[in-house]
Amino acid sequence: MSDLIGSTARMVGGLKASRGLVSSSSRLVPEEVPIAFSYAGSTHAVMMATPADLEDFAVGFSLAEGIIERADEVVAIEAIEAGEGIDVQVTLKDMTAEALIARRRRMAGPVGCGLCGIESIEQATRAVRSVGSDHVRLTAREIADATSMLAAAQDLNRQTRAVHAAGFYCPHEGLVAIREDVGRHNALDKLAGAVLLGGWTASLGAVVVTSRLSVEMVQKTAALGVPILIAISAPTALAIRTATAAGITLIGIARDEDFEIFTRPDRVAEGVPMHV
Amino acid sequence: MSDLIGSTARMVGGLKASRGLVSSSSRLVPEEVPIAFSYAGSTHAVMMATPADLEDFAVGFSLAEGIIERADEVVAIEAIEAGEGIDVQVTLKDMTAEALIARRRRMAGPVGCGLCGIESIEQATRAVRSVGSDHVRLTAREIADATSMLAAAQDLNRQTRAVHAAGFYCPHEGLVAIREDVGRHNALDKLAGAVLLGGWTASLGAVVVTSRLSVEMVQKTAALGVPILIAISAPTALAIRTATAAGITLIGIARDEDFEIFTRPDRVAEGVPMHV
Repeated sequence: MSDLIGSTARMVGGLKASRGLVSSSSRLVPEEVPIAFSYAGSTHAVMMATPADLEDFAVGFSLAEGIIERADEVVAIEAIEAGEGIDVQVTLKDMTAEALIARRRRMAGPVGCGLCGIESIEQATRAVRSVGSDHVRLTAREIADATSMLAAAQDLNRQTRAVHAAGFYCPHEGLVAIREDVGRHNALDKLAGAVLLGGWTASLGAVVVTSRLSVEMVQKTAALGVPILIAISAPTALAIRTATAAGITLIGIARDEDFEIFTRPDRVAEGVPMHV
Repeated sequence: MSDLIGSTARMVGGLKASRGLVSSSSRLVPEEVPIAFSYAGSTHAVMMATPADLEDFAVGFSLAEGIIERADEVVAIEAIEAGEGIDVQVTLKDMTAEALIARRRRMAGPVGCGLCGIESIEQATRAVRSVGSDHVRLTAREIADATSMLAAAQDLNRQTRAVHAAGFYCPHEGLVAIREDVGRHNALDKLAGAVLLGGWTASLGAVVVTSRLSVEMVQKTAALGVPILIAISAPTALAIRTATAAGITLIGIARDEDFEIFTRPDRVAEGVPMHV
């Protein structure tokens, strides 16, 4: 185990101005490291991320990118320090030429590969998997539990006040997994990997995140097959449209038992107003 | 002018649970649209962004990516609706084959183009331009002004509570430019374009942002040539190292006249403690 892999925060010195007085200060700040994901020797993407929980990250990222559908398609994950960053080399079960070509086609991202604008835009807004689950239904009390349990479990954020978190909440079981990262997308990818590797049934729980709800957060939740997405903050218009297309219940502005439901309110016990 | 281009927020309906009562509700949420940047017919990247200030965005993005160094290298910007998104086609002054090949090499991003892990990581952490300016020095009062003027100018965030902002502050002149976006990187790219197109002297001011200070925020500030970067929130360890390398004064946790200085305190009038 090297210095870089697994490190999450670092103490730095500086100066602090407070009420007009300047003094020396120190603070724990989050690590941020370029992490490359490589398949069959070729890098698919580099993410700026917290260099911890790399196996979860590799599995969750591969799922979100459509490279795998189940955790057992990954047979090996090796994290190697490479210069200033980490190269995470993912070995897939099916590495035959045909499978790689099909994957490469799916992996042909929207970025810098000579696609025209319209093709690139179609890639970025590719159809999401529909999440049909009707097996989970939350009460206002449970939504409040999910957000308060997430807040209580943010160890790295308590130290640094500068990282995001994503958690997986199941009724009766509580918050069964949480992952933190300097990037909100990465936190959700890591959580997805943790859910898959932990053997939790995605369709029976809810994802709860500290961040804004951009469209990618909905796409990743759909890829994992989780029917409910709860955020402290507000969604974008495209996130709402995508949640509608995926059949996901989108809950935002969640503070204690107060929240707003943007899509599929039938999965919230209080979701159908009684007197309107 | 179409419906998509220039739209920033949209009213959506939903349900609101408050103190145990559920009622119909409506809320303004920010638009989020895939925006492709194309050069000579080939797309370089797709960003999920607020579809406004697209000329600023194109110039600032091109600067941050190392495709241009000055605004007058761009001779035309055309925004075209393409499916669910917008294709922003940028025409550069020097479109000769040689220049395009050189640019294409710089543009070969870290993503999905068959680079190995180490090459991709080196691309992501490429050396930043050093910002040598010693012509600007801020007082604690001016730092407080910069953040309060930014907060006052966030029109879209006041409507939606879900977008970031980046501003350019000059001593004696105040906040001379501000741009907002659902993405913090995009807000800074748009601001950079606005500074270049507005003819402001980058070396005489400070960038102030609402978001966390990840490494890309420092890289973009360095590309613009601004010597001071102020944020409401905290930096990552890599952002601090990169600011040191670029000679940028990094100020975080800025609330009123209280703040922390992580690098190059000599550009803050109170930056050298008198009695330590």
